[in-house]
Amino acid sequence: MTPNPTQAITLHACQAIDTQHPLRDLRNQFTLPEGVIYLDGNSLGVLPKTAAARVATAVTEEWGRGLIRSWNSAGWFSLPQRLGNKIGQLVGVAPGEVVATDSTSINLFKVLSAALSIAAQDAPQRKRIVSERSNFPTDLYIAEALCKERGLTLDLVEPEDIASSLAADVAVLMLTHVNYRTGAMHDMAGVTAAAHAEGILCVWDLAHSAGAVPVDLTAAKADFAVGCGYKYLNGGPGAPAFVWVNPLHADRFWQPLAGWWGHAAPFQFTPDYQPAKGINRYMCGTQPVLSMTALECGLDSVLAAQALGGMAALRAKSLALTDLFIALVEQRCAGHGLGLATPREHAQRGSQVCLTRETGAYAIVQALIARGVIGDFRAGDGGRHKDILRFGLTPLYIGFEDVWHAVEHLRQVLDTAEWQRPEFNQQHAVT
Amino acid sequence: MTPNPTQAITLHACQAIDTQHPLRDLRNQFTLPEGVIYLDGNSLGVLPKTAAARVATAVTEEWGRGLIRSWNSAGWFSLPQRLGNKIGQLVGVAPGEVVATDSTSINLFKVLSAALSIAAQDAPQRKRIVSERSNFPTDLYIAEALCKERGLTLDLVEPEDIASSLAADVAVLMLTHVNYRTGAMHDMAGVTAAAHAEGILCVWDLAHSAGAVPVDLTAAKADFAVGCGYKYLNGGPGAPAFVWVNPLHADRFWQPLAGWWGHAAPFQFTPDYQPAKGINRYMCGTQPVLSMTALECGLDSVLAAQALGGMAALRAKSLALTDLFIALVEQRCAGHGLGLATPREHAQRGSQVCLTRETGAYAIVQALIARGVIGDFRAGDGGRHKDILRFGLTPLYIGFEDVWHAVEHLRQVLDTAEWQRPEFNQQHAVT
Repeated sequence: MTPNPTQAITLHACQAIDTQHPLRDLRNQFTLPEGVIYLDGNSLGVLPKTAAARVATAVTEEWGRGLIRSWNSAGWFSLPQRLGNKIGQLVGVAPGEVVATDSTSINLFKVLSAALSIAAQDAPQRKRIVSERSNFPTDLYIAEALCKERGLTLDLVEPEDIASSLAADVAVLMLTHVNYRTGAMHDMAGVTAAAHAEGILCVWDLAHSAGAVPVDLTAAKADFAVGCGYKYLNGGPGAPAFVWVNPLHADRFWQPLAGWWGHAAPFQFTPDYQPAKGINRYMCGTQPVLSMTALECGLDSVLAAQALGGMAALRAKSLALTDLFIALVEQRCAGHGLGLATPREHAQRGSQVCLTRETGAYAIVQALIARGVIGDFRAGDGGRHKDILRFGLTPLYIGFEDVWHAVEHLRQVLDTAEWQRPEFNQQHAVT
Repeated sequence: MTPNPTQAITLHACQAIDTQHPLRDLRNQFTLPEGVIYLDGNSLGVLPKTAAARVATAVTEEWGRGLIRSWNSAGWFSLPQRLGNKIGQLVGVAPGEVVATDSTSINLFKVLSAALSIAAQDAPQRKRIVSERSNFPTDLYIAEALCKERGLTLDLVEPEDIASSLAADVAVLMLTHVNYRTGAMHDMAGVTAAAHAEGILCVWDLAHSAGAVPVDLTAAKADFAVGCGYKYLNGGPGAPAFVWVNPLHADRFWQPLAGWWGHAAPFQFTPDYQPAKGINRYMCGTQPVLSMTALECGLDSVLAAQALGGMAALRAKSLALTDLFIALVEQRCAGHGLGLATPREHAQRGSQVCLTRETGAYAIVQALIARGVIGDFRAGDGGRHKDILRFGLTPLYIGFEDVWHAVEHLRQVLDTAEWQRPEFNQQHAVT
């Protein structure tokens, strides 16, 4: 990056923005550890203050005292739908269209199976799935496995080649809305329209966008979507994921993970499967109630923004935070070989800033973590994709002063060559 | 049932057995609600006293303070294997052969997919799955969906017809070890040997046997097994399930839920899937850590019996409890039209007693629940399978005095016709 020629941004100016910001109090919903600037909410969201008591009640009262009766009396059975309706508000769909259940990978298997079955029925000549080479790997693995089973081909392309790849033999375009490595965001409505114009179904992974950027699946006329509960939705480690199917398709296909929770009448215990109507057939087995309970606290923490302008207000703050991060890095860390992987254009940016560096990216991230600035490292592929320093800026709880301090730590780590210390250069398990 | 001619069993005698029983103190591991005799541990196990504090630590310390660092520092990544090794001790397999993950239904999909793929490779003429008509429905639904996808047939037979159904065109025999409705238990080693003699692979569902009866998958030479974490393993509502694959088969097949947690190197983020060795390839996506944490407390509560004779000692107590329940019903509830659905032969009995009645079974269960005796009702099919009053007798925490009181309540409900009250006859959601 080259030095930013505009007037130097001061800590005082950042503090002033925080003090006056209409979303400032949303941060008080969370327990943030002392001495930490947490820029990894795109990997694991922070703890809502309500969660400890709520989970404790689920353990001691609902499980301990209520026991089996709590399936009805504590509403355990309806958790997937109740939480799904809350998620629906964040992704632009009506009540009854989303369930919270299973993991993102498993939900992707369900919807991709359904999309391929619909395509096989409507357009059997279509034998390819197109996705992005730098899509999150688990999405590609699930698609690869389904292709193997069904005799299809998975074609991985670079983002600039997506439009030209939408050919007459493509059944499904499967994309992650915001890229996990770069924070680059697709134009969901535009890409979906282009795919539909060629008769191609669109499956969207919202792992890095639900709760982070405004999403309107209905307006975009998307076909299928899945997403993650433990990133921007603050649902806790490994929180259940979610799944949405456009009502146009929801009753068309019997997805292969046809467990009893997706049955039209699960407690009639009939030996033959009759799928429930709508999104409920995308459920499979019994859900982890304690983790679901924590997820609800996370969803409520995001929905608390509704009274203050909702996702649009969060988005405005997110863009201001990422703009500030980029500007500060350019002003204060110039000459250290950092590049910017995240798009400068607002319309193409999620809620993270990713920096590149030819060497040392891992050690720089470790040195920052040692200083309490938690971002993460993602390795490059030795080719087009360089090593990445990734910083998630969750507008619910990250402030402008946090950004200033984070970049100041980065400056110090670079200026003093602190990152070259041996302890920061021992590669080990990363998350 | 007809009156039992042997000497009348007294409350005092039951209390004396409890007082002297070598497993008596295991009950102190649990929080049991006051005024409740809980005979539904076969549906949802009770709360281990350790769970509240352990889950609270996972929420406030591991998630709240450790945040993303806890994937390594708190051992979140290794939960599936660590818990799997504990489960392995209860089902007769070596460390490294089981993972705790996902739901029973989803794990069944994985192993049944694998079994069918192995069969398709080794014996492509085999086009049928055989199971039991009264197997737990979700097992049948998953099998039905896979058959539909792969052009196979699912044949459902009665238990007495299993042996004669093992024909040359059968690929897989899929059974639940202990039947959820009747508590009838299959001879796992004998049935597996009979199937293998005909070249048929065996998939066992241990939902009602892991932690309830001794299981030795290795000695039985079983091929695949799945099981439930929230019944006899006391893992909490919707706790993750488990999956085991005979090491003979574990590296042979790439199961279709090929998510990143089953990858050989999940953090290299390569776009192509390379399955991990052994059972690890049966994982898919990120697991619900809070629910996994509670499950570990449940597993520890069962493993606490190891020092007192382990599953053999639990089994001896379980048989004594179920024998007592049957004898007391015969002595004290004769003439009320109750039948016994559970086998009298020890070798064929799990850890529950199921009674039948032509009419009123639902209302009798409701009247018992109102008195604090929690069992459950399972509807019949109008034919061979009658309505069932189901009583799970978990030897870890149910005592002989509990059995005496439970049957005494049943006697009173029947003798006074209390069950005929209108409030007990309004059918609604049951679990």
